[in-house]
Amino acid sequence: MLKHALDPRSVAVIGASDNPHKVGGRPIMFMKRYGFRGALYPVNPGRAEVQGLKAYPAIEALPEAPELVVVAVAGEEAVRAVETCAKLGVKAAVVMASGFGETGAAGLQVQDHMAEAARAAGMRLIGPNCQGIANFATGVVANFSTIFHEMDCRDGPVAIVSQSGANSQAIYALLRAKGLNARHVHATGNEADVTIADLVEAIVEEPDLRLVLLYMESVKNPAVLARAAENARARDLPIVALKAGRTSRGQKAAGSHTGALASEDRVVDAFFERHGIWRVADPQQLVSAAELYCAGRRPRGKRLVFLSNSGASCVMAADYAEMHGIPLAPLTAQGKDALRKALPAFAGLENPIDITGALLTNAKLFGAVLSAVGEDAQSDLVLAALPIAGAGYDVGMFAANLAAFDRRYGLASALASPQEAVRAEFAKLGVATFAGEGEAMDALAQVADHSVLLRRKTSPVKRVKKSFPAGAARFLSEAESLAVLAEAGLPVIEHRFCKSEQAAVEACAAFGAAVMKVCSPDVPHKSDHGLVALEPADPGAEFRRQRERCLALGARFEGVTVARRAARGRELALGARLDPQFGPVVLVGDGGIYLEALKDFRLLLPPFTEEEVLAKLNDLHVGPLLGAVRGAPARDTSAFARMAVSLGEAMLGWSGQVASVDVNPVMVFETGRGALALDALIERAL
Amino acid sequence: MLKHALDPRSVAVIGASDNPHKVGGRPIMFMKRYGFRGALYPVNPGRAEVQGLKAYPAIEALPEAPELVVVAVAGEEAVRAVETCAKLGVKAAVVMASGFGETGAAGLQVQDHMAEAARAAGMRLIGPNCQGIANFATGVVANFSTIFHEMDCRDGPVAIVSQSGANSQAIYALLRAKGLNARHVHATGNEADVTIADLVEAIVEEPDLRLVLLYMESVKNPAVLARAAENARARDLPIVALKAGRTSRGQKAAGSHTGALASEDRVVDAFFERHGIWRVADPQQLVSAAELYCAGRRPRGKRLVFLSNSGASCVMAADYAEMHGIPLAPLTAQGKDALRKALPAFAGLENPIDITGALLTNAKLFGAVLSAVGEDAQSDLVLAALPIAGAGYDVGMFAANLAAFDRRYGLASALASPQEAVRAEFAKLGVATFAGEGEAMDALAQVADHSVLLRRKTSPVKRVKKSFPAGAARFLSEAESLAVLAEAGLPVIEHRFCKSEQAAVEACAAFGAAVMKVCSPDVPHKSDHGLVALEPADPGAEFRRQRERCLALGARFEGVTVARRAARGRELALGARLDPQFGPVVLVGDGGIYLEALKDFRLLLPPFTEEEVLAKLNDLHVGPLLGAVRGAPARDTSAFARMAVSLGEAMLGWSGQVASVDVNPVMVFETGRGALALDALIERAL
Repeated sequence: MLKHALDPRSVAVIGASDNPHKVGGRPIMFMKRYGFRGALYPVNPGRAEVQGLKAYPAIEALPEAPELVVVAVAGEEAVRAVETCAKLGVKAAVVMASGFGETGAAGLQVQDHMAEAARAAGMRLIGPNCQGIANFATGVVANFSTIFHEMDCRDGPVAIVSQSGANSQAIYALLRAKGLNARHVHATGNEADVTIADLVEAIVEEPDLRLVLLYMESVKNPAVLARAAENARARDLPIVALKAGRTSRGQKAAGSHTGALASEDRVVDAFFERHGIWRVADPQQLVSAAELYCAGRRPRGKRLVFLSNSGASCVMAADYAEMHGIPLAPLTAQGKDALRKALPAFAGLENPIDITGALLTNAKLFGAVLSAVGEDAQSDLVLAALPIAGAGYDVGMFAANLAAFDRRYGLASALASPQEAVRAEFAKLGVATFAGEGEAMDALAQVADHSVLLRRKTSPVKRVKKSFPAGAARFLSEAESLAVLAEAGLPVIEHRFCKSEQAAVEACAAFGAAVMKVCSPDVPHKSDHGLVALEPADPGAEFRRQRERCLALGARFEGVTVARRAARGRELALGARLDPQFGPVVLVGDGGIYLEALKDFRLLLPPFTEEEVLAKLNDLHVGPLLGAVRGAPARDTSAFARMAVSLGEAMLGWSGQVASVDVNPVMVFETGRGALALDALIERAL
Repeated sequence: MLKHALDPRSVAVIGASDNPHKVGGRPIMFMKRYGFRGALYPVNPGRAEVQGLKAYPAIEALPEAPELVVVAVAGEEAVRAVETCAKLGVKAAVVMASGFGETGAAGLQVQDHMAEAARAAGMRLIGPNCQGIANFATGVVANFSTIFHEMDCRDGPVAIVSQSGANSQAIYALLRAKGLNARHVHATGNEADVTIADLVEAIVEEPDLRLVLLYMESVKNPAVLARAAENARARDLPIVALKAGRTSRGQKAAGSHTGALASEDRVVDAFFERHGIWRVADPQQLVSAAELYCAGRRPRGKRLVFLSNSGASCVMAADYAEMHGIPLAPLTAQGKDALRKALPAFAGLENPIDITGALLTNAKLFGAVLSAVGEDAQSDLVLAALPIAGAGYDVGMFAANLAAFDRRYGLASALASPQEAVRAEFAKLGVATFAGEGEAMDALAQVADHSVLLRRKTSPVKRVKKSFPAGAARFLSEAESLAVLAEAGLPVIEHRFCKSEQAAVEACAAFGAAVMKVCSPDVPHKSDHGLVALEPADPGAEFRRQRERCLALGARFEGVTVARRAARGRELALGARLDPQFGPVVLVGDGGIYLEALKDFRLLLPPFTEEEVLAKLNDLHVGPLLGAVRGAPARDTSAFARMAVSLGEAMLGWSGQVASVDVNPVMVFETGRGALALDALIERAL
């Protein structure tokens, strides 16, 4: 139970220091300063008193077994302390010392031993090699971060949970620079026992929290994180995560030795998206939209209105919005009328709205334009930019205007100004402020897009058990693969499995235009061996040729698949695999042999909807070719999406029996004409 | 001569105001404050004295014709003032009033009239609708920007030339926040006469300038800007430009009515690249690398070493570098030895270099690591990050270490810290500082990439006159087009132009596998009309069919082109067109019919080199398919690049006679086997 760690009645510090700036001194100083109300026991055999508190020579000498122990000693001493705590019935221990798992195999062995001792006794272990946990609601700051000394910390609506101690501080500093406070600041270090996922699960039900920020270099316990994220989503509590080690170089720097490919990082994207976690790339982005989140902004859409007193900033904003896919809401005729009354005669009445330099002489323009925008009710997001302001500008009134607008219309709105003094005037009235206009638009768009994920209907994972043919071969033959897909509800090309030459000749005749492919569990990539024939002129001869070739390869020959040659359409790829960490993952992408070379694909974690598949197709480089283009009709992407949904459900239903599925190509016909799996290869999880 | 505007011996202000915060008061206040040493004449019929200076009732009443006049009156009065100045022999006038070209056709007519009056008299006109010019070397601040009142301005190494007055101030403020000063701050407004290009040309030869920053919404006078940029490049003076209106939405906001497609913005990219101008997307990026430029950093390569006292920041930096194509320089064995001696035992010896939290207790680590990096001499760029610093950290010493490193090794180096106080310690020793690590890496990479453009050998545009067949038809036939390309030195598919059925039959027989295509100046897109036949079984019948079909379309039939059917390769597209503003532009891209739909192409302005073409091919989405992939050999991209270079030279040589050239596809064979134009369509400039 992490409650004992986050809200203990008693805390002991082993290795307590009278020097408040040593690792063993900081937690005591912090808990005194930040109002911890429970019993606080310094343990130090050499001192009768530590920082004004009675000290004890050993943990065994305390009047009670403390709920939480901070282990601020190093090496062997730390290991012994953990063992003793476990024996005494301590509920949770924070081990700060480094020199364990991060140093190599020997250190990892010691770390495992420590974790095992804790686990056996039912004690939770935080660390080792961690800065510790801090809860400013309870004053439990079992943490030695410098930043809590440099800043005056108060309880706030944000939680920061980070593997890295240094980064927990950096994120905290950035958050404070936004004028926000954090309740939780936890750094989990080596995560021998307690992971980020555990801490998130422990805190998401706190009603005062408005935002959770995560930093991690690996996703440990994805099932727990998924559950915690769903709890958070049910409470409309947004989680924003920075998962570093996206690239092979980054994974190397993170000391990850999994050998995982960088591209597999996209599975993490899919996992986060599935559970409503917004992923960002750096600490600045982690806090960028924090004010909007904490103010409870959950826009219903993404239509932006931009207004500025600089025409140039309107031009740049229009570029930015178009390049980043943020729709600029057009004003209605009525809205334009209202603007016309407000603005100088030469001003345009378009969005972005150029208030013009006339704002210097007529301060009322700002409020008048906002009012026109609010009444027009065509936007979800509003960004006011003041690239120029200062002497002569009534910034205080502008701030009051925007704050009133915020209250009245409840849109997600923000102010962008490069001048800190200008931003401060708005911030003190509770307006979200940004130095740059691009950053502000990104933050507004993020909150809009994240709100879609937060509102997404929770479709609980239904594992409708699906039968799957037993067998020992790693790969199913094409005929078996197609049959399994058909059983799972995917439309597959009309085909016959032909064991004899006679059957193959009859099948070719029946289909007219046919394709003949070898059927062997040992030849998964048939075309690489010349074992695919389009419309063979002499089907009998082709059957014999394929048999001989197959046997010459030392492969078992089961017969051939004869399939009807499909009409022309656009070829897409559909695939699935069982990720060892995240379970079933479905791939949709451009079809053909260059899937790996061009990486034009997207991943989804099932279950998902057709709409979600369509959105992914839209993101592909070849997305524009799925609509009507160059005389070709639009493609039946809905049919393809249904196939992807069925494949996702099947992967769940097969409950880990299937390692991978490749359906490449799926031929997608014109809208209304469906799509067909032309080829299939299923791999068993052995 | 803009010298009279930038360094006049006398300045008059028409509409001079005693109120220093009116448009007619500001220039006088500023010129007094910023030390203008020439004669300053306020003109105001209602006052004997303005801001302590003797005032004159009219421009005609001055003791001399002033070199520069600031026209701070509006409407008709401004027009009359310009006319009078022109008559009196004034050399340059700055017209501040708005209400001219930007308001529509009527205003434009008045503006044109004003410009014509100036031109006729040899007077240069800046504006109208402009904030004016400011030169802090001469104290000529014929400008009413608020920012020059709010800040204490001094001469500096930077020039800002902006169409937008508001943006000139925003950029100036951002530059000052970087601790840099500007000599020139000019805002050109409607550019009835003087353009950004003119001002750039006028200032680039000033020896004290280290950096020129531009903001524009349209590129007027590209030839002048090109000349000025080449002068700047010859002097190693970098120019960074923000050209807004990249997208159709942005162009609309900029009030551009050219109807130009957003994608044509890529021509601007090509123009800037050709002339060594670095293009950025927002004002923050415009100033981001300013300290590095001003310190004269011109890295020879782009290899980065990153060091930090936070492991997490190392992981994020590794991700960032890989995702943004910044190579992380590996250390030599010797370099690792040096690091091993410096760092704690558990630290890694890789780049990014994790100095670890041990920096808190051992401040010498910072200098020791820098020294190891400098001696190792494997890097061009060095970024030191201190995401955590403050009490307990010897930041002053770190700053001294990095400054000394900078001086000793002359690499482009920078410091990233989210804490302003930390940055300030480094900045005061002249180190370039950044709040975010990503921004810092971008700035370092920018200076490295820009240095390549600055060093690029200037290949003066040689227009080797090339013959081009005269004619009146807009399109050349395919045979003519291929002949013109062959004449220009491009390898084209072996083919015969056949006027008779007999000739066509013979040609098909001679080639074995042949393609027959109609030849008509009226049918540019043959395949759209079924007028292309692959390996016709009966060449005579096909010739007759094509003739009939062609005549049925009402098109002239000249015969057919019979071409040898090319071996398989990868199809690329090569094209060229005559841009009305920028002249010849060459396109290289993915071949096939989806060039417009997928926009997988890049543009170059001739002349250019093979290497430059290869770099563009590498940037294509299909770039990975040009190397060896999935059993297919690497493609002869050099042969394609030679074709592109030849086409560029030909476009220059044809001196505007050719409107466009489409060579799609060019079949590119495996390395060493060359490339061939399979199809060609040339359009005359009529």
